[in-house]
Amino acid sequence: MPSVAPAPATPPRRVHVTEVGLRDGLQNEAVLLSTAEKMALARALVEAGVLEFELTSFVSPRAVPALADAADLVASLRGTRGVHWSALVPNLRGAERALEAGVDSVVLFVSASESHNAKNVNRSVDASLEGFEAVARRLEGSGIALRGAIATAFGCPFEGDVQVEAVGRIARRFADLGAAQLSLGDTTGMATPPLVTERITHLREVVPTLSPTLHFHNTRGIGLANVMQGLALGVERYESSIGGLGGCPFAPGASGNIASEDLVYLLTEMGIETGIDLDGMIAAARIASRLMGRPLPAQVSKAGPRLALSDCSAVPTALGRA
Amino acid sequence: MPSVAPAPATPPRRVHVTEVGLRDGLQNEAVLLSTAEKMALARALVEAGVLEFELTSFVSPRAVPALADAADLVASLRGTRGVHWSALVPNLRGAERALEAGVDSVVLFVSASESHNAKNVNRSVDASLEGFEAVARRLEGSGIALRGAIATAFGCPFEGDVQVEAVGRIARRFADLGAAQLSLGDTTGMATPPLVTERITHLREVVPTLSPTLHFHNTRGIGLANVMQGLALGVERYESSIGGLGGCPFAPGASGNIASEDLVYLLTEMGIETGIDLDGMIAAARIASRLMGRPLPAQVSKAGPRLALSDCSAVPTALGRA
Repeated sequence: MPSVAPAPATPPRRVHVTEVGLRDGLQNEAVLLSTAEKMALARALVEAGVLEFELTSFVSPRAVPALADAADLVASLRGTRGVHWSALVPNLRGAERALEAGVDSVVLFVSASESHNAKNVNRSVDASLEGFEAVARRLEGSGIALRGAIATAFGCPFEGDVQVEAVGRIARRFADLGAAQLSLGDTTGMATPPLVTERITHLREVVPTLSPTLHFHNTRGIGLANVMQGLALGVERYESSIGGLGGCPFAPGASGNIASEDLVYLLTEMGIETGIDLDGMIAAARIASRLMGRPLPAQVSKAGPRLALSDCSAVPTALGRA
Repeated sequence: MPSVAPAPATPPRRVHVTEVGLRDGLQNEAVLLSTAEKMALARALVEAGVLEFELTSFVSPRAVPALADAADLVASLRGTRGVHWSALVPNLRGAERALEAGVDSVVLFVSASESHNAKNVNRSVDASLEGFEAVARRLEGSGIALRGAIATAFGCPFEGDVQVEAVGRIARRFADLGAAQLSLGDTTGMATPPLVTERITHLREVVPTLSPTLHFHNTRGIGLANVMQGLALGVERYESSIGGLGGCPFAPGASGNIASEDLVYLLTEMGIETGIDLDGMIAAARIASRLMGRPLPAQVSKAGPRLALSDCSAVPTALGRA
């Protein structure tokens, strides 16, 4: 194996948090939100300081009715000062729709495992990658950035382990297409700290120009432990979902994406700048919970910030003496 | 400030996990379990490989009816081969009851903050510490170990920040009393990675003979992130609760202790030995959930182990093309 640079000893001073709740969160929820409701949630998040959104997907409206308003939503929010609005697209048709609506970047997505890609977009991994060439050509000179996203990057719910080389091979294709950013999707919560280290180390070898984004799900409870590993490796970009919106289609009751306010709480307490205000995020999470009509998995929204103190006199139970 | 040894660069190879669900978990739950039900849960945990339990508390049965059967429970389980049964005690009276029942160790507990200690056991921190002298004398020559536990060690829900020196001062008293182990209790989920580093570093200076145990709550979602920090510092002892049993009395809907099976999952995936079998823990968590009559916060019990694969043909939704 080639030698690799050691991980930095200190976490980054500043981290970029991309909000994916309106895309990855809603995609797995039964409740359908109106475009106006989505706009209200997005605006609350912007108010809290969120500057980067993966807002929606330009996929089949029949397959994902929750995101059928993709074009209207992007068109309604585009141009918000200082905010970057991106959208997932699986192919040229999706990219055309996204460009027309006015996104700031398109995120081309493909799974690292064949069976997941087949289930997701009904084609082989190579067919997805070949289709991306036309998107890259279409984007040339448009000023709209091309980004990459690899689903099942830490494991596949159908196939199990995913070899790091499969991720590296796709990453190289994205680099060749001109992508500057690449998101590693932990689609069903199979990432672990050693896999984070393995994948980040490998990508730094094979695609040193690509800035990695870590996209964890909390399906098995260790989403923020994986963030800690990413921070120890110096990774500066993370994706999360307000309230922990979204579930796992393969595990009833299991959590979906890591919760944005829990992530922002962790980063803030570690002295890492995000530009995002925790109280504002808790307010946005309340809106999300109200819109979905149920409590969401995020924790800090329920407990409040660390120094939200309790009234001692209001506390009922003591352990008492023996 | 005196210089301190740098944190080890690698996590420990083996970690001790102490199960506290039957004590800290049940103490905050409305459902009362019978002694037989508690025994069934404890035996399932032993079956999974758990060797260390904080089983109950010898406190006021009026104040904590859920633990009123402390003596019966200990007497019923004592002598299980290779298993260590400890119990919390606030004072000499509690210690006498615990000894009579047959515990392997007593855990003396006190809060690092005055208002929490007053609320919890109705006396000052110094009065608690002075009372511990009689317990230490009583234990001399008994063969029963004395351990220490400091509640609100990372923050107090009434007072806010807790100075590290307050924790260090109490730790020194426990060391003087002959304790070899000290648990730092994150009573209401106020621990953060920097506070973990600060507290562990300080304790290594002032009580180098005391082995620290980290006892985190997931109230604000970052319990396992704090475990990652503890591991990076080389801490080898953690306390957790099966299923994430228990809540936070100050935050409706918020989680209590970190979940044992999520912790065991994380450690196992990191290649750290615990001697505990994940499938056995998931089985125990199902018993706990059934006994409590509700889903518990733990995640890996809902989603299954990492390589519990889904049937591709049973999956309904795909994103589709654009």
